[in-house]
Amino acid sequence: MSGFVSLVGAGPGDPELLTLRALKRLREADLVLDDALVQSQLLELAPQAKRFFVGKRAGRHSIEQADIHGLMIRAARAGKRVVRLKCGDPFVLGRGGEEALALEAAGIAYEVVPGVSSAIAAPALAGIPVTHRGIASAFAVVSGHAESAFGPTLDGIAPGTLTLVVLMGIKNRGAIAARLVTRGWAPETPAAIVHGASHDGSMRWLGTLAELGVGGGIDTELPGILVIGAVVALADQLRQLSIEPQAALEKTS
Amino acid sequence: MSGFVSLVGAGPGDPELLTLRALKRLREADLVLDDALVQSQLLELAPQAKRFFVGKRAGRHSIEQADIHGLMIRAARAGKRVVRLKCGDPFVLGRGGEEALALEAAGIAYEVVPGVSSAIAAPALAGIPVTHRGIASAFAVVSGHAESAFGPTLDGIAPGTLTLVVLMGIKNRGAIAARLVTRGWAPETPAAIVHGASHDGSMRWLGTLAELGVGGGIDTELPGILVIGAVVALADQLRQLSIEPQAALEKTS
Repeated sequence: MSGFVSLVGAGPGDPELLTLRALKRLREADLVLDDALVQSQLLELAPQAKRFFVGKRAGRHSIEQADIHGLMIRAARAGKRVVRLKCGDPFVLGRGGEEALALEAAGIAYEVVPGVSSAIAAPALAGIPVTHRGIASAFAVVSGHAESAFGPTLDGIAPGTLTLVVLMGIKNRGAIAARLVTRGWAPETPAAIVHGASHDGSMRWLGTLAELGVGGGIDTELPGILVIGAVVALADQLRQLSIEPQAALEKTS
Repeated sequence: MSGFVSLVGAGPGDPELLTLRALKRLREADLVLDDALVQSQLLELAPQAKRFFVGKRAGRHSIEQADIHGLMIRAARAGKRVVRLKCGDPFVLGRGGEEALALEAAGIAYEVVPGVSSAIAAPALAGIPVTHRGIASAFAVVSGHAESAFGPTLDGIAPGTLTLVVLMGIKNRGAIAARLVTRGWAPETPAAIVHGASHDGSMRWLGTLAELGVGGGIDTELPGILVIGAVVALADQLRQLSIEPQAALEKTS
């Protein structure tokens, strides 16, 4: 019997936004390696599996990337079915590509199970379509983690030509907003912050790019996303898409 | 009893890439309105529902957008549970926002059920992570349907700063490639075409931006996506992620 590694996208948090394949893999798993943002309810779907937390929380160091690779490879060589569970989609700023390369190099059988990306789902659940006919026919997803990376990327996008979705950018939102305004984005461009979409404690702030740096008095250690662009104004009209409409529905069905 | 409309993302095609909530809504549906690219297997998951095909195929006109709105609204007013099933995610170039606005205006209760977007999943299943540390920390998703829309968007992105994913761009891939090269993208930038990822008849072409316009001798009426950027070269190393590795796995599990 040979082991197998599934690099699985967990979606934005709500267990109902898991894919059927992700659920199947969790149920069959011997070992689950999960990240900081994965909701604990998801782990209950893998009752037989050992769980190993390999995430980082707000810069606090937990485990090196090479150690994650080593864990997956050793478990697979011991014949285990390993699920590497990642928030959102495994190939969107999740180092899934690095893990796949490590598995290739070690000769381990693996697959990728795409997930619902928070980059699209979090805005949607907060009433913001990332594209909308006549408003935006394109969007960009950018890491807001380090200015050395987001700086050149943001500088390289002409103001207002597409919707900007920034992941891991809460802490740097002041620097991001300032850089965009310097680049020529209108300070009155609609902007949003969405925290915890699809799970408990979700929160939405709506304002403008000029206000984004100080928007909402937000705890900068909370994970969340920024959305910048004219589509954000649709949230005022899509009133049923606050960030918790699903909960009300679940009770009746 | 009042009706309800769910704007549901069907994912890239494979029924196992549906979310649990999407499956639940299909099973409870009285009426399913589906698009051209939705796989027929998905409709079998809604055995009790009437099905109404409202898609367009390769420019052939079938039904006006306003008629789709009318169908949803009338059915909901008659107390039906309606699923509006859309390929990928409903808010990624899918006119989901327009449908949500129409439902708001008519006072119909509705929700959005985000799906796995083909913009991310199709590259992933073909061995291309849209982001990869040290290569690309951002990606843009662009409609390739009309040059009047993609022209300004592509002109507005500095060459090589992020991964470009173009949906509905097969037919215009020559114009897209030419525009990018004129804008300053290196002709040797890796480029890919992915057709039908996650379902039967999937196909992958790998080459360069210079070759993209004539790439693969592809039937331009087939749906598919273009991926342009240095991350495409990872496909050579991620050898297990061809576009059909899941099928082999399913047989053993």
